[in-house]
Amino acid sequence: MDVYVVSEFAPDIDACQHRCVSNSRSLLELTPVETVACCSPLVQEPISAEQADGIAPLLKAIADPVRLRLLSLVASHEGAEACICDLNEAFDLSQPTISHHMKVLHEAGLVDRDKRGVWVYYRIRPQALAGLAALIGCPVP
Amino acid sequence: MDVYVVSEFAPDIDACQHRCVSNSRSLLELTPVETVACCSPLVQEPISAEQADGIAPLLKAIADPVRLRLLSLVASHEGAEACICDLNEAFDLSQPTISHHMKVLHEAGLVDRDKRGVWVYYRIRPQALAGLAALIGCPVP
Repeated sequence: MDVYVVSEFAPDIDACQHRCVSNSRSLLELTPVETVACCSPLVQEPISAEQADGIAPLLKAIADPVRLRLLSLVASHEGAEACICDLNEAFDLSQPTISHHMKVLHEAGLVDRDKRGVWVYYRIRPQALAGLAALIGCPVP
Repeated sequence: MDVYVVSEFAPDIDACQHRCVSNSRSLLELTPVETVACCSPLVQEPISAEQADGIAPLLKAIADPVRLRLLSLVASHEGAEACICDLNEAFDLSQPTISHHMKVLHEAGLVDRDKRGVWVYYRIRPQALAGLAALIGCPVP
């Protein structure tokens, strides 16, 4: 199996990319969020097949109307954090369905979670959203 | 059938949202790119079910590794434009498969296309990418 080192795809190494390279981790070992952080913006240079494979799960996670709403509900909630009980109330869906969608967002690396008492709380990972936005094409400041 | 006017979901109307409202067009009539342009960032306020339904097809279009690479190839090409012949050369896929993926990106509103001689040329729609990036969460300048 070929293992590609991130630096092969990123000749112009910025601070973020340096972290990837200095860890000597191959793209195949990175999470979707880490892969996004290692990519140049889509418009800057063609992304590689390995990068695209790494990023697609992150986009798939938010390419669902319910998950997009759940993500926005958590992100716009006070402290960018919400209890699963608040999320359940906002949808006409069963609790297991909501929990399943939140699990997909968590596994994609878009939210952190922790249990407090009987409830699970979800917190947005701002760097994941910022990385995805930068990849797609934020205006250069 | 209920028809929702954009202004119901956007009490703080900015210049972009004003265009949506002044056209008196319901969310159900907007393209995915127009819906994105009418949304506040995910982190600012919860997006509505109608907005999420409108935006998901745009995210689905890029949540595929081949389409993500195609989009990046066009976006990073000179003039943010590429001939289908250049795209065919970059992939080990059949021409009909590439054309199908480009059709999905075109129908989502991410690329424009026109025919010159025997070849179709695709050009990125920067406002579509910028709108999507802003929705997900670009840093506030």
